[in-house]
Amino acid sequence: MKIGVDVMGSDLGPKELLKSCLRFVSENDAELVVYGNQEDLNTIDHPRIFKIPTTYVLTMDDGPLAVKRHPDASMVKAISDCAEGKNHAVVSAGSSAALLSCGVMISKMIPGIERPAFLAAIPNTLNTSTVLLDMGANSENSSDHLCQFAILGNAFAQITLNIDRPTIGLLNIGSEDKKGDLVHKDAVVKLRAMDKINFIGNVEGRDVLNGVVDVLVADGFSGNIALKTVEGTVVAFNQMIKEVIKTNRLTMIGGFLIKDELTKMKDRLNYQKYGGALLAGLNHVIIKAHGSSNEEAFYNAIRQAHKLASGGVVDKIKRDLL
Amino acid sequence: MKIGVDVMGSDLGPKELLKSCLRFVSENDAELVVYGNQEDLNTIDHPRIFKIPTTYVLTMDDGPLAVKRHPDASMVKAISDCAEGKNHAVVSAGSSAALLSCGVMISKMIPGIERPAFLAAIPNTLNTSTVLLDMGANSENSSDHLCQFAILGNAFAQITLNIDRPTIGLLNIGSEDKKGDLVHKDAVVKLRAMDKINFIGNVEGRDVLNGVVDVLVADGFSGNIALKTVEGTVVAFNQMIKEVIKTNRLTMIGGFLIKDELTKMKDRLNYQKYGGALLAGLNHVIIKAHGSSNEEAFYNAIRQAHKLASGGVVDKIKRDLL
Repeated sequence: MKIGVDVMGSDLGPKELLKSCLRFVSENDAELVVYGNQEDLNTIDHPRIFKIPTTYVLTMDDGPLAVKRHPDASMVKAISDCAEGKNHAVVSAGSSAALLSCGVMISKMIPGIERPAFLAAIPNTLNTSTVLLDMGANSENSSDHLCQFAILGNAFAQITLNIDRPTIGLLNIGSEDKKGDLVHKDAVVKLRAMDKINFIGNVEGRDVLNGVVDVLVADGFSGNIALKTVEGTVVAFNQMIKEVIKTNRLTMIGGFLIKDELTKMKDRLNYQKYGGALLAGLNHVIIKAHGSSNEEAFYNAIRQAHKLASGGVVDKIKRDLL
Repeated sequence: MKIGVDVMGSDLGPKELLKSCLRFVSENDAELVVYGNQEDLNTIDHPRIFKIPTTYVLTMDDGPLAVKRHPDASMVKAISDCAEGKNHAVVSAGSSAALLSCGVMISKMIPGIERPAFLAAIPNTLNTSTVLLDMGANSENSSDHLCQFAILGNAFAQITLNIDRPTIGLLNIGSEDKKGDLVHKDAVVKLRAMDKINFIGNVEGRDVLNGVVDVLVADGFSGNIALKTVEGTVVAFNQMIKEVIKTNRLTMIGGFLIKDELTKMKDRLNYQKYGGALLAGLNHVIIKAHGSSNEEAFYNAIRQAHKLASGGVVDKIKRDLL
């Protein structure tokens, strides 16, 4: 099993991500193919890391045309090699939009899946994870897309969370079946009719974090709003807790006493630590790591790619679509 | 100024809400007209509280037809009296759906506003408030609706937050103008062309709580998702903080030392305390208090109705629409 790693285009630069690569091969019995600037690649050396020097880096301004124009871009080369079987999954912390273009144009959609979706496992209050998709690859979806997302999320939960028959919910503005716009009303009817998944009904925004389902299907617009609202609320809360502790001497002592546990709690909510987002629905495992990934986060993203490719997630999805 | 108060249909029952009524008249120079069961109304007595006994309570299962069939319902009677000038604003903790039906059928939409919107001021990390609408009166909106919501939110912020020229943002899945589905792309163009409001562009879910705008316009679907996701995240956070404090003896002491400040912080985020949601876009001020309102919350809802009616919010909206 070889994982392709695009080390370009992240906020902290290739050196940080190359540290993750070295850690990965030392801790796991797998091979990596890394794509990036020759100069950066020269700084590491390991018998199970193969280096492919590239000369261009796609940015968020690079649309589908740029993908065709730059076969020498690290991201394009990594995914092209994956499509040709030279590596078995790809991880990148580069531009989401560029990765989406590369994925759709080079890896291509699985037949029966019309739209790609960004999928991630986010932490919940049960101390497990909830699979959320789509987190914003789409700005609009049909009810058929939502049913396809259910298949994608189901396969992901089975392979990465080891749940036999994951419960699946639809993010909507009320829990009754008749709630929502036409797309969501229609989706509930179709999801209830799918016997390959364990659909339990609509889920409201207030239940996103409490683990009421294993897989939460959302259209790209509301999935993105929900995810970023969680992020923003967590940031706001952390800031407010800091202010609480700073109030006076006693609260500062109080803050000192709960500090370690508080840090653990914050880490638990920091889902960027948990790896990356799967660009689901494509013929290959392509993981988008966060742009600001540090060594730990990017390491987890590589591990996730390895787990998904080893678990045969794409074949599983194809079987479920039959 | 007379405020009409429907004391029926709440979780804690009319007795709790009648306490708010008594407190309101004792602390404010205003009159109340209360609508509800004769028996309950008999339990209070105040020279500035007028009682109108009613014999039916609308529930969430009562649609538009029920509004016509039950002129004797507390909610219907309160709003009918408002439309006839017998009171000047209405507050109810009864069913949202029934209130929406009553509002649209009896008070009717302001000419130029096509859809009602639930609007509330939610707390932010700047220690001010952000006006959010629509929070879920609609499951789908056009770009014109979103522009009308901007007018409604603008007038509300001017009158209740005393901001001369409130900043207005559109809840979307990215900050650039070209982001989102067709409705949102179109709305940004239209909002930028409106010279009566101070539109500053798209706002992402992660900025809902940080006070980046005074008024956040959202379609009813994503506004509802954002609001409930904030609620859910706050609940999850409170639960996790409790667990942090319970960990061991030292953290329990730490928790004791920050307890008072922590409670203040939780109260700040509990926006249900801040009053109710305005059913915006109607010809009268109609406030939906939370179904689980206690004396304090319902008192604040009555005060908010009083402030909005005294400030002439409906006339302000009508002028802005010219």
